[in-house]
Amino acid sequence: MLQSHEFWMAQACQLARKGLYTTHPNPRVGCVLVKEAQKIGEGFHLKAGEAHAEINALNSTEVDPTGATAYVTLEPCSHQGKTGPCAEALIKAKVKTVVFGMQDPNPEVAGNGLNKLKAAGIEVIGPVLELECAQLNPGFIKRMQEGLPFVRLKMAMSLDGRTAMESGESKWITGPDARMDVQRLRAKSDAIITGIGSVLADDPSMTVRIDSQDNEVDPKTVRQPKRIVMDTALSITPESKILYPTHQVEIFSIKEEIEEEHWLTLSKKGVQVSFVDRGEDGRIDLIHVMEQLADQGINEVLVETGSELAGSFLQQGLVDEVVVYMAPKLMGSLARPLFQLPIESMDEAVDLTIQSVRQVGNDLRIVFVPLYLDEMEDEIDG
Amino acid sequence: MLQSHEFWMAQACQLARKGLYTTHPNPRVGCVLVKEAQKIGEGFHLKAGEAHAEINALNSTEVDPTGATAYVTLEPCSHQGKTGPCAEALIKAKVKTVVFGMQDPNPEVAGNGLNKLKAAGIEVIGPVLELECAQLNPGFIKRMQEGLPFVRLKMAMSLDGRTAMESGESKWITGPDARMDVQRLRAKSDAIITGIGSVLADDPSMTVRIDSQDNEVDPKTVRQPKRIVMDTALSITPESKILYPTHQVEIFSIKEEIEEEHWLTLSKKGVQVSFVDRGEDGRIDLIHVMEQLADQGINEVLVETGSELAGSFLQQGLVDEVVVYMAPKLMGSLARPLFQLPIESMDEAVDLTIQSVRQVGNDLRIVFVPLYLDEMEDEIDG
Repeated sequence: MLQSHEFWMAQACQLARKGLYTTHPNPRVGCVLVKEAQKIGEGFHLKAGEAHAEINALNSTEVDPTGATAYVTLEPCSHQGKTGPCAEALIKAKVKTVVFGMQDPNPEVAGNGLNKLKAAGIEVIGPVLELECAQLNPGFIKRMQEGLPFVRLKMAMSLDGRTAMESGESKWITGPDARMDVQRLRAKSDAIITGIGSVLADDPSMTVRIDSQDNEVDPKTVRQPKRIVMDTALSITPESKILYPTHQVEIFSIKEEIEEEHWLTLSKKGVQVSFVDRGEDGRIDLIHVMEQLADQGINEVLVETGSELAGSFLQQGLVDEVVVYMAPKLMGSLARPLFQLPIESMDEAVDLTIQSVRQVGNDLRIVFVPLYLDEMEDEIDG
Repeated sequence: MLQSHEFWMAQACQLARKGLYTTHPNPRVGCVLVKEAQKIGEGFHLKAGEAHAEINALNSTEVDPTGATAYVTLEPCSHQGKTGPCAEALIKAKVKTVVFGMQDPNPEVAGNGLNKLKAAGIEVIGPVLELECAQLNPGFIKRMQEGLPFVRLKMAMSLDGRTAMESGESKWITGPDARMDVQRLRAKSDAIITGIGSVLADDPSMTVRIDSQDNEVDPKTVRQPKRIVMDTALSITPESKILYPTHQVEIFSIKEEIEEEHWLTLSKKGVQVSFVDRGEDGRIDLIHVMEQLADQGINEVLVETGSELAGSFLQQGLVDEVVVYMAPKLMGSLARPLFQLPIESMDEAVDLTIQSVRQVGNDLRIVFVPLYLDEMEDEIDG
């Protein structure tokens, strides 16, 4: 039976997802080779420094790929990176057709790979399942196009929108299934950001403790996202769990606010402290920090923090997606809000698009996108 | 084909729901007559003073009901009310079997109807689909068993759990579909309760403006729930929309706090003002009010009010169900809470059971039951 392009591209997407936790800073890419209506090979990119999806697919086949069709979720690269250019390899393999999911999001190279293929007489078809292919790499795409990482905010709240008691007490708002789901969010992130308030209150380790099959594992055996602490005055104690292992940590502070001696103590332990300017609100300039993280190759960041820092991210237009775990309880009107967000009248309210709602154990998982970015653009345009 | 008892009882439940907006203060009841595996008649109770479901079913059949099976969602009554006792009618009609959904919830008459049938040689089977049959009449059952109406709290909130801006501004938090759904909640209620704060801020009419087919209609053409205003100091202005027509309104106040002259003005207009004692919190004793409403035959009340009065209902253990419409927006941390509910630590948080979640237009509709009642009972028991 002759299958549609979408059918094979969907398989390539499935393959790409096998690299969900590991390809950083590279994109997740999958590839399927089809000849005479049969799949003859498949591959995906697993890890930076190792072979790309197309090469793995070509290596996997026991059939001569001459005349085959290659389905690739992302435009094959034309440049020599750590591994050879994939466009070249497909030409050498004499495939007849290349079906691509989306163009390279890097505006400087977009189309180069496709042009190289076309120049070699290969038929190029696409984009096919572009949205699905783009959803594999929200962070990579945003970094390439805007020089900023994709920011995902994770919040745990009660039904009445509260994230912590007035005292700061906040442990175990949600159930074990929701906490497991947070592990998955961490595992696919390049970096996890928190604030000094959360560190001092809960002393979290912020590690990934699952593998790609959701098995609980020793954090040392899986890739750990970089851990970032926003700590204006550098108040973090050297014993904080989040600092270990130290080579995976970066603290952002404001130089005039820190104590030199404390900085020295931390530096001796190997903790990297970076200084940034103040933003308009007098605190750490979050946009500057995000730009620095993108420069380090960080695609997706997960912000796990309290209502104050979360509110700042939101107010500065940095949030691409919010994942809220809503627990079936009321924490009352004294408790802390979801976001510190001073709004005076209904027409200033932040509109959201709800992307999905599902049950996770006893909790609800609501994913939404704030629409303030659009509004801000409208204001600039209009 | 021989159908199960559940099959026919489900049809009887469907019929009963046709009286959802109109049977007050009577329960919603449906009846199906089956003979030789065929439905030969059906009926439901439409309106107090008119015939009961069983009588309507018997009247509807063109076949001799001798030897038939009657499916009734509620135990047939044995007493002479405004219409004759239904048990008697079934006996006269010579039905062979009566399948009932649930016993009469009134502990003083429960079983009497069934015993009368049995004494006449009729086979009695049941309860069948008891939960479904009970769900037809949460208010009638609670009033019979506890002397209190079933209290449904309707709230409209933003995703961050806010019900109004700091200024009190709250109009149009949710969309038109959610507001239509509120119309349905009103239509099935015997009374709608609000607080003087909401009346002064929004001047709502709190009327039902749909018929049973969701058509928009003139409020005068459909049954209107009684409108109740909690108004400690009797500050309502005589022009308030909610007061008209006046014979459907009752205001609860505390006598020492009112101005005699204002009371006279309202009384002259025909507005009924009732005085109640202070509760433990110094405000209107809500439990006392609920008892009075139950005495008036009010089964289900819908509370549509702000976070303060809603919080009092919750704190006093009066709430049976909460329907929250959650709008996809953030109203911020200055805005008013879902409930005024002072809770200090996580172990005081009110646990909820979420009964359903569905989309209504762009909003989410979440129905939950507070579990504090169980907890309070546990505390008394243990």
